[in-house]
Amino acid sequence: MLTKTSVDGSLRALRTLRLLVLVSLCVFISVSAASSPAQEEDSAMENIVTEKKAEESHRQDSADLLIFILLLTLTILTIWLFKHRRFRFLHETGLAMIYGLIVGVILRYAVQVPRDTSVVSACFVNSSPATMLLNVSGKFYEYTLRGEFSANDVKDNEMLRKVTFDPEVFFNILLPPIIFHAGYSLKRRHFFRNMGSILAYAFVGTVISCFVIGLLMYGCVTLMKHLGKMGGDFFFTDCLFFGAIVSATDPVTVLAIFHELQVDVDLYALLFGESVLNDAVAVVLSSSIVAYQPQGDNSHTFEAMALLKSLGMFLGVFSGSFSLGVATGIVTALISFLFTKLRDFQLLETALFFLMSWSTFLLAEACGFTGVVAVLFCGITQAHYTFNNLSPESQDRTKQLFELLNFLAENFIFSYMGLTLFTFQNHIFNPMFIVGAFLAVFVGRAANIYPLSLLLNLGRRNKIRSNFQHMMMFAGLRGAMTFALSIRDTATYARQMMFSTNLLVVFFTVWVCGGGTTQMLSCQRIRVGVDSDQENSVNGLERRSTKQESAWLFRIWYNFDHNYLKPILTHSGPPLTTTLPPCCGPLARFLTSPQAYENECQLKDDDSDLILTDGDISLTYGDITVSTDATGARTSGGLATDDLDRELAYGDHELVMRGTRLVLPVDDSEPPFTDHLRM
Amino acid sequence: MLTKTSVDGSLRALRTLRLLVLVSLCVFISVSAASSPAQEEDSAMENIVTEKKAEESHRQDSADLLIFILLLTLTILTIWLFKHRRFRFLHETGLAMIYGLIVGVILRYAVQVPRDTSVVSACFVNSSPATMLLNVSGKFYEYTLRGEFSANDVKDNEMLRKVTFDPEVFFNILLPPIIFHAGYSLKRRHFFRNMGSILAYAFVGTVISCFVIGLLMYGCVTLMKHLGKMGGDFFFTDCLFFGAIVSATDPVTVLAIFHELQVDVDLYALLFGESVLNDAVAVVLSSSIVAYQPQGDNSHTFEAMALLKSLGMFLGVFSGSFSLGVATGIVTALISFLFTKLRDFQLLETALFFLMSWSTFLLAEACGFTGVVAVLFCGITQAHYTFNNLSPESQDRTKQLFELLNFLAENFIFSYMGLTLFTFQNHIFNPMFIVGAFLAVFVGRAANIYPLSLLLNLGRRNKIRSNFQHMMMFAGLRGAMTFALSIRDTATYARQMMFSTNLLVVFFTVWVCGGGTTQMLSCQRIRVGVDSDQENSVNGLERRSTKQESAWLFRIWYNFDHNYLKPILTHSGPPLTTTLPPCCGPLARFLTSPQAYENECQLKDDDSDLILTDGDISLTYGDITVSTDATGARTSGGLATDDLDRELAYGDHELVMRGTRLVLPVDDSEPPFTDHLRM
Repeated sequence: MLTKTSVDGSLRALRTLRLLVLVSLCVFISVSAASSPAQEEDSAMENIVTEKKAEESHRQDSADLLIFILLLTLTILTIWLFKHRRFRFLHETGLAMIYGLIVGVILRYAVQVPRDTSVVSACFVNSSPATMLLNVSGKFYEYTLRGEFSANDVKDNEMLRKVTFDPEVFFNILLPPIIFHAGYSLKRRHFFRNMGSILAYAFVGTVISCFVIGLLMYGCVTLMKHLGKMGGDFFFTDCLFFGAIVSATDPVTVLAIFHELQVDVDLYALLFGESVLNDAVAVVLSSSIVAYQPQGDNSHTFEAMALLKSLGMFLGVFSGSFSLGVATGIVTALISFLFTKLRDFQLLETALFFLMSWSTFLLAEACGFTGVVAVLFCGITQAHYTFNNLSPESQDRTKQLFELLNFLAENFIFSYMGLTLFTFQNHIFNPMFIVGAFLAVFVGRAANIYPLSLLLNLGRRNKIRSNFQHMMMFAGLRGAMTFALSIRDTATYARQMMFSTNLLVVFFTVWVCGGGTTQMLSCQRIRVGVDSDQENSVNGLERRSTKQESAWLFRIWYNFDHNYLKPILTHSGPPLTTTLPPCCGPLARFLTSPQAYENECQLKDDDSDLILTDGDISLTYGDITVSTDATGARTSGGLATDDLDRELAYGDHELVMRGTRLVLPVDDSEPPFTDHLRM
Repeated sequence: MLTKTSVDGSLRALRTLRLLVLVSLCVFISVSAASSPAQEEDSAMENIVTEKKAEESHRQDSADLLIFILLLTLTILTIWLFKHRRFRFLHETGLAMIYGLIVGVILRYAVQVPRDTSVVSACFVNSSPATMLLNVSGKFYEYTLRGEFSANDVKDNEMLRKVTFDPEVFFNILLPPIIFHAGYSLKRRHFFRNMGSILAYAFVGTVISCFVIGLLMYGCVTLMKHLGKMGGDFFFTDCLFFGAIVSATDPVTVLAIFHELQVDVDLYALLFGESVLNDAVAVVLSSSIVAYQPQGDNSHTFEAMALLKSLGMFLGVFSGSFSLGVATGIVTALISFLFTKLRDFQLLETALFFLMSWSTFLLAEACGFTGVVAVLFCGITQAHYTFNNLSPESQDRTKQLFELLNFLAENFIFSYMGLTLFTFQNHIFNPMFIVGAFLAVFVGRAANIYPLSLLLNLGRRNKIRSNFQHMMMFAGLRGAMTFALSIRDTATYARQMMFSTNLLVVFFTVWVCGGGTTQMLSCQRIRVGVDSDQENSVNGLERRSTKQESAWLFRIWYNFDHNYLKPILTHSGPPLTTTLPPCCGPLARFLTSPQAYENECQLKDDDSDLILTDGDISLTYGDITVSTDATGARTSGGLATDDLDRELAYGDHELVMRGTRLVLPVDDSEPPFTDHLRM
């Protein structure tokens, strides 16, 4: 088939181009379509028939949404071209931004629609309720509050406002799937091996960079004030807030390339782990910084109480969201553990899994915690426990479902970023601030990576080499999270300036840093195409040492998890009767799943951590969760080294396989037995 | 494993029960959680800080949504129990309604929350714009119109309003996936075999039942007016509208049972086909009836012009939506046809497919057509052409994705129905009207089925037997579509009464008719457990005759589709060079996919219609779309009988397999070769 297509490749390329043109035409058509109903609105202005107006606005909304759908379609087709031609200089997200920019320009300059808003300045009310009833000649009309409205909007063009989504959409609808997917795919030997370092980068590092950036920006801002370059208030808390939201890294581009080129697994794990966790930290940090501002008076002086308050809030919200996410994850695991027969109805299973994960977010939001953070840890828990109870088919389904959602949400956000650069109403581009911000972001990242790496290297046996450090420094892209956090509130002057600046930071990092990844890799001489298994066998010495290194944190957790949690929450792991002290025998017998005994005698010895590697594999195994217990049986006393080895080895394999679909048409179907033998 | 679990079955059952209790507890907790923030709102009433209020309402919304998520979870767990225990008297949708009812009762009577709305009756404006700016002490606050507001709402309970979704949600978000899925899975030999009858039932039948019900209701209404039982206006057009929306049948319950019991395939096809298509007819019919009402004056007299207008609208909107849906379906097919290499990136492929299907809806809505109708026909087209171009894995993915969406949306709608019976504010239960409605619905259904069957039997060789007719009569359930159409507009007295009545109609039909399906089947002595293939071989005579019967409509379409459309839009079908007249040779050569020639020589002979049967099968085949062309080659002249036979046979197989996951853990993996040989 390949030969065939290469024969008429040229013809196909022609068609392809024609099609791209076609789709982009559609975009423009729909752009104009989006504008036309709005014009009609003007004429319909007089009559009070609300149905007509509602219908108009519905058609309008459909047209607006259509623009984005077609944008995504266009992006997908082009991405495909790039992947097909192995272009690596531009990632799909970068592409989405470019298309977004183009449409933004069109909307901004090509389409001009007068707005339809009557200002009821007649009645001065002393409060702005969430819901309001307007008495129009005896009839009541219900209005819902949309938020405050900066005066300069009023004059502006309807079209632009129409394509502006409610900022909360990003945080409450588009971000959760992305974060959940990150958590769901964050389950890898190297993550655990480097757990300590990752946690250090994610928590300590993010806080450092937040404060470094904050201080630098404060200096920049004060300087601007002196030079009279500042058009409004900009307090220290705002600077810190800026530092917090811009500290959330999102190297999706880099990771995609790393994965494609099979870059050194440790580096991958460090970057991925950090980026996943520091999002959570940044979210909570920013919210607690906002909480710091004294409510009553606008005196932005230092206040011990307020500081303590927001410190407590940080800890409270973070631990709350964390435990909530883990809790729901465990509940799901329990359900899928008890309802074993659920496996016969994959649809129900998948639906249940999806709903439980979603409810985590809602529950957290309803309790006043941060849904995104909860979802992240829920995802990690799901991957670790629930996943093992799912039927192989549901494992595929869920993975594919969240993969798809993640893909769509991510590209939507990035294309919206491109669009909003032109369609957003209250941009404030302050050259000095922007330059300062870029500097601060750079320095902040440096202050995060280098000192921490230095400290960590004191503890680590396999040092984080300098070229790795440079690479991590370089890979500090900003993305969806920064955007979602900064678009959430653009009421004040300071926030508007931050938003505009953040957009530029994201564009720059995604295009320049993202695009230059391959070059950077080569000039830093970082090994690519690492076959992890071979790596194991070759420098086994390093492996031993690193195991010593990670032991103190990793082993404790592993033992507890493997001997107690897994048996209780999944059908894998050793029977509790062997792990628990004899005194609680009855309890153990009650809690242990019958399969645990059943499979104690099995010979096939692969840790269930393997399961997330790839659906195809777990399919080849059939019911894989069952087959861990030989391990369990042997390691019940403690942790057999070869057992750990084997798990780690599988972890590698997993890395090579993960998310293949996203990047390259690698053949997934190769069964893991091969490298089972290889070792 | 089965033996094992039966051993500790009792224990497991206990756990299961405990879990159900646990989840239902969660529901109640979240119900109370949903209520608590609202109470806080009261205290926060004074300050103008809109952020706080927005946050409150966001928490509130999350809590409300959480209720539904947990409801669905509960439903899923219970459905599982039922399926597991083979209970057939209650379908998942019926169950969802019951849980909805329970929560509705709780919200209505257990939770009491005062509402927070300040009536700005101070300012009398002479228009109600879509967007309004309220000038609160110099600051502008933006408000968006939510619709008119019947006075009696004002006094009512906040909680109830909170859990009331925007009616458009159902029509624009929940209905499309359901309808699309219906279209996507409507691709079956027996559908084409009974095409004529199905179209007759769907179009003629729906119109008949609409007018019959309308007239009966008009009689009922006039009687009520005489008896003074009527509290408001109720015009003839309202009666017709009622007739239209209540004519949309949705026998999801019945079909599930049919499928489970493998009821006679012709009956299945008739019911399924009718229910899918009459939804579309009912939607357009109702909208054109609404359009009939003369705008300016409220004189609901007969008006030739208006009648013609709405007649034209019916034809225009229907054909428009139809062609739009088909068009986008074909575009998708073309894209997936040209971008063959897209198959290497299933994620992109699936995303593209999803986006294109969604854009159909949006495009139709933006053009003022009916999105739901467009989506339906888009789904059918996708299933027929695009599906064949997808990689086997994407075929799975898309099927599973839409299966999941359909499942979630359907159960959400039904549980909301249950809820809204208690939480909806303006119910008007008029006993006389309700009795009249039930009678009318019954008679209308009868007037649809029996006369048409009589007429059709004149033409048909294999008659629709009387017990089939009774079964179809019995299976006229009302469901999601009727609900979505009637909740869309509940402004006037007439509409409110319709809505309340429709709810009861849905409940009754789903619970009573749905629950009694198995009994009805047995008392009508309708064959169950029909193995279609055996049916083929046994009464092959009937098959021949029916082929003659369906020929005039079916064959023409089949020839055209198979010889021209399929080769152009998919990689299957005969090379155009063989089917087109020699004059347009170059064109043919340009349009034909290289694979068409390549596979002309193949021996494996299965029509691509098979492909939709089940992902597993197409997987066993590998790239199946390729393998149709032997057929094509031979039938290029016309249509070889054995070829048709074979396709039809596969159609059967398909029927047996379809949506197995939904109903029973039947083993899918059996390759179709088996019955390939059996014939």
